[in-house]
Amino acid sequence: MTYCVAMNLEQGLLFGGDTRTNAGVDHISTFRKLYTFSNDKTHALAILCSGNLGTSQALIELLRKEIRANESNLLNHTSLFDCAKHVGKRLREIIHGYSEEDYDKKVDFSGSLLLGGQIKGEAPRLFFVYPQGNFIESTRETPYFQIGEHKYGKPILERTLEYTTPLNIALSSMVVSLDSTIKSNLSVGLPMDVLIYEKDSFNLDRYRRFNEYDQEFLAARKYWLDGLRRLIEEFPELKV
Amino acid sequence: MTYCVAMNLEQGLLFGGDTRTNAGVDHISTFRKLYTFSNDKTHALAILCSGNLGTSQALIELLRKEIRANESNLLNHTSLFDCAKHVGKRLREIIHGYSEEDYDKKVDFSGSLLLGGQIKGEAPRLFFVYPQGNFIESTRETPYFQIGEHKYGKPILERTLEYTTPLNIALSSMVVSLDSTIKSNLSVGLPMDVLIYEKDSFNLDRYRRFNEYDQEFLAARKYWLDGLRRLIEEFPELKV
Repeated sequence: MTYCVAMNLEQGLLFGGDTRTNAGVDHISTFRKLYTFSNDKTHALAILCSGNLGTSQALIELLRKEIRANESNLLNHTSLFDCAKHVGKRLREIIHGYSEEDYDKKVDFSGSLLLGGQIKGEAPRLFFVYPQGNFIESTRETPYFQIGEHKYGKPILERTLEYTTPLNIALSSMVVSLDSTIKSNLSVGLPMDVLIYEKDSFNLDRYRRFNEYDQEFLAARKYWLDGLRRLIEEFPELKV
Repeated sequence: MTYCVAMNLEQGLLFGGDTRTNAGVDHISTFRKLYTFSNDKTHALAILCSGNLGTSQALIELLRKEIRANESNLLNHTSLFDCAKHVGKRLREIIHGYSEEDYDKKVDFSGSLLLGGQIKGEAPRLFFVYPQGNFIESTRETPYFQIGEHKYGKPILERTLEYTTPLNIALSSMVVSLDSTIKSNLSVGLPMDVLIYEKDSFNLDRYRRFNEYDQEFLAARKYWLDGLRRLIEEFPELKV
């Protein structure tokens, strides 16, 4: 399983994801699910993947190959909408490229992804791309999307995240959301990747990986645990 | 859908559940999912139900009928383990009583339940009863069970609940867990029922229903929202 979340806010975009892949509980590996595409000037894009790892790796490989070959690709579209269409088409082709026979054996080649970024001339945009190739875009009212194991990490986002939330505060919500999921579901695990994109910067260098030995992350985790416990202890009395 | 949670702690038992039932998003009703069985002296039991409402109503009706008829019933077993066995057997019988033909039409008659309480001579006990009629018991390490839409409300329990948590603190965790689920999933809704059973009291009168007009509940909800937002705003800085 996987848990990834992306946000399109007033100040820019945030991306976060775990790195666990599993085929059963006894076959667990670490794979990055966050990929970036950029030319540092006019195009800055990031993709978060969930679902079949073979499918998402094939997709990323293909997208990079198109860039190298200078064909129609993610770095020469003039709108992120066209990039979403492009990625959706490729994703669908890959999923439909597997044989009927394997689908009959209930192998799931499917996958969804989040595509966000900015192309010069547009505001930053964020899309949720489905395995069927269609997609939806985030809005001010719904400024974030989740893929994979999304339920555990949703309450904190619902309660603390708005379009106007500053990037550093939104980062905290995102880290708590990811960590809540990691603590509750074995199939979602550390390390976690986070990426911050500041509006109009066309720069994707604000990236960090948190692992289980990261003292700053462990201190933040303890802060949250202690804070929640204190909040619960001081909860208003409910007469029952 | 449904979300119910029950806890077996050092000081006693807690039960909580929403009251929403739905057959599609346009067929929503309010039904109590918490039932009690007691003689005020030697037996104090509560059941929380999830799954098919027809199944759980048929089960409760049957259990009450057995008590009235003074047959083998929940109020004359000498151990809660035997009650769990009894309830599991009845649940399985009801689920298997429906016709093959309807199962072929993909109607789901299944359901799970939580059975907790105390019988004189034993400590309070809590069981998770499966549609197959088998069951598991809570322990010090795992002092709570959830049924239904359990994911949204799990992180807060994981972080704030232990076997030694006092009942009033555990009540706050439970209310937050239920409210997180209600806010995140349309198929789980107010009012919510809560029941507190103090160890060795054989009394099930500490019951309350919270609805959307309950000022005390609304104040608690606001306290939680404000508290979480403050915690996120004061989150330790993570350099990215």
